[in-house]
Amino acid sequence: MPFHHTRLPNGLTIIGETSPSARSVALGYFVRTGSRDETPEEAGVSHFLEHMMFKGTPRRTAEQVNLDFDRIGSSPNAYTSEENTVYYAAGLPEYLPQMLDILSDILRPSLRDDDFDTEKKVILEEIKMYDDQPGSVAGENARRIYYGGHPLGNSVLGTLGSVGALTRDQMHAYFTRRYAANNIILSVAGNYDWDQMVAQAAAACSGWNTAEVGRTHRTECNGVGGLHVLTRPKVQQEYVLFLAGGPPADSKMRYAADTMALAVGDDTGSHLYWALIDPGLADSADCSFYENDGSGVVYASFTSELEHAERNMEIVRKVLANVQKNGLTAEELKLAKSKITSRWVRGSERPMGRMNAIASMWAYTGEYRDVDTELANYDAVTLDDVRAYLDKYPVDRLTTVAFGPGAKVAGVEGQVV
Amino acid sequence: MPFHHTRLPNGLTIIGETSPSARSVALGYFVRTGSRDETPEEAGVSHFLEHMMFKGTPRRTAEQVNLDFDRIGSSPNAYTSEENTVYYAAGLPEYLPQMLDILSDILRPSLRDDDFDTEKKVILEEIKMYDDQPGSVAGENARRIYYGGHPLGNSVLGTLGSVGALTRDQMHAYFTRRYAANNIILSVAGNYDWDQMVAQAAAACSGWNTAEVGRTHRTECNGVGGLHVLTRPKVQQEYVLFLAGGPPADSKMRYAADTMALAVGDDTGSHLYWALIDPGLADSADCSFYENDGSGVVYASFTSELEHAERNMEIVRKVLANVQKNGLTAEELKLAKSKITSRWVRGSERPMGRMNAIASMWAYTGEYRDVDTELANYDAVTLDDVRAYLDKYPVDRLTTVAFGPGAKVAGVEGQVV
Repeated sequence: MPFHHTRLPNGLTIIGETSPSARSVALGYFVRTGSRDETPEEAGVSHFLEHMMFKGTPRRTAEQVNLDFDRIGSSPNAYTSEENTVYYAAGLPEYLPQMLDILSDILRPSLRDDDFDTEKKVILEEIKMYDDQPGSVAGENARRIYYGGHPLGNSVLGTLGSVGALTRDQMHAYFTRRYAANNIILSVAGNYDWDQMVAQAAAACSGWNTAEVGRTHRTECNGVGGLHVLTRPKVQQEYVLFLAGGPPADSKMRYAADTMALAVGDDTGSHLYWALIDPGLADSADCSFYENDGSGVVYASFTSELEHAERNMEIVRKVLANVQKNGLTAEELKLAKSKITSRWVRGSERPMGRMNAIASMWAYTGEYRDVDTELANYDAVTLDDVRAYLDKYPVDRLTTVAFGPGAKVAGVEGQVV
Repeated sequence: MPFHHTRLPNGLTIIGETSPSARSVALGYFVRTGSRDETPEEAGVSHFLEHMMFKGTPRRTAEQVNLDFDRIGSSPNAYTSEENTVYYAAGLPEYLPQMLDILSDILRPSLRDDDFDTEKKVILEEIKMYDDQPGSVAGENARRIYYGGHPLGNSVLGTLGSVGALTRDQMHAYFTRRYAANNIILSVAGNYDWDQMVAQAAAACSGWNTAEVGRTHRTECNGVGGLHVLTRPKVQQEYVLFLAGGPPADSKMRYAADTMALAVGDDTGSHLYWALIDPGLADSADCSFYENDGSGVVYASFTSELEHAERNMEIVRKVLANVQKNGLTAEELKLAKSKITSRWVRGSERPMGRMNAIASMWAYTGEYRDVDTELANYDAVTLDDVRAYLDKYPVDRLTTVAFGPGAKVAGVEGQVV
């Protein structure tokens, strides 16, 4: 599938994979900003701003944004992570001009005072709602503790205090600083004409500002270590997370890390499956690799009754220590690669999947890799590669966080949250 | 995309759409049986049996089923509805022989006594879990009441009583009666060789029995009418469902019914969106068309605080009465068709989507329709078609069911459930 890329004079990057046999097209604006790019006073502004982008522009009210998408049978969507804020849509090829027009329009929002005040209430409710979800509380706190002050541990939602105190002018300043054209990638995949699309995008985005953009703290993190116990008596189950450092998104070692994590923690046939799930010792168990800009992290986790939490913690530690010492077996490596290959291919079948994949690759590495290249990269992972990855990023160098009803876990007193 | 179909001597139907440019293949066994085909004593057996299919065969233990799928990076899945029980998987083209081998094997399960007893406990837990979910309780009861004794109102899960009393022999008798080869469709879509696949399937399935299969009560239902109030004090919100009759799956009117339901109840830009969601009167509101063998049904619903439930019921009734009287506008019809078209195309992009779509069509109509034909069928819906459909199946001929904390709603005393 042909790949193209270009850069507008103001620095906006446009990338695209064209697939003439596709029956749809997907497009997305990837803004390279998120909670890790916020100052403490701005905590939560990236996510709050993502909501505000749908509240209207000089050309459209919020209702018109929805109506205009409705007319072409599509709907826009968005998400905010620690380091990316993404706005995207998919639809029939003949409607690409309309989708591009509306998405480009909402990327320059009015940020009206009234809308800001109304939406702030929605965000504060959302923060409270997530605070009712134990899995979310456990994850947020585990990140915060593991990163020990590094901005990758910042909360995407922010706090009731930080969002409550945020002003419209602070948001506008953040927008001007981070939503500069040279910090944005437009990614398009599916059935469309590259030249026409670029001409339209250039016209729509040529007025966008350029700024000094970048990202501080692109250093690797390996966690603060230790066991940290957080207590909330009303929670029913104990949530335990184990975090270890991993390669950053632009490292070749990411393939070995991804493969190792799947062999250890996939939902069937993995080390943790056989150690915890099959014998009925825990309700869930997982191990996944997450890659970030400049740093990566491996998360292992389980949930279980409090009374079995300490025993299960020992089991997970033994599983990880064993992998650290012995690596994977040839059979395990083969199995993990075949799962990854199958999922990668199926995830690439839709333009939406490809639009996302090429944007992530480009954002992190400035490279394009087609499906076959990416499959070959996974297929090339050897037992020695896994060993070399583990030697550099030991998976038993853990920071452990427990959250749940336990007031004292493995001898550590809990802090009430 | 080429379509093929054939029938084995024992009556098993095989259908397939081949797409040489696809990078994966999906396959599924569609057994034309579900809760509507159960006697009262067997209530829940279809769903319980679906679980038992993964517990091993004469050739494989349950663990081997999982391991064998793991090796090819795939995993099998299944679901049970009122009238279909479906077993399916997707993976890389080179692994189709293995996927077909395992799926065909599990379709002839051992049904061991020990596994039956163990799995019964799992099912009983599942029934209790769903009974904790108000949306599920509301939906099950609404069906039961609307169908007034017609088997389409049967619960897929069954009850603690019926599943608790079920024996392994009853399940085996049901299996022999309903899992006969002539009641099963094997559907395959994606990148594969039709002749090779058929040869393998014929070898794998040739020993399957043939039986007198069929389905009683293929009559249309229009509901018992009236307002029925069910009360559970601990539930927080009031769930209100409005059910009206609709065309069966093999009726040409299904396209008009589907289009009307989307215009009335889609999650943005619909009648119910503007009447209930945009002004903040209800937390959710929906209208959808479901097609069954011999009968169809339109569900409208909302959830809201109890104190606003009566007002919202009036609003929904007015919306439906207005549509019944005036039909849709040309603009609404256009909008709904463009949404349906866009979703249909995107749902068809993966082999899994096509495998499902062609199997449903074939099961209900004995017809194959490619993506373009189906799009043309939606595109051909006129305002007159919508009128003709509404005249035959009035959308204001309602059976209404309320479930929630309300002990008395709109003057009707609630029955505690």
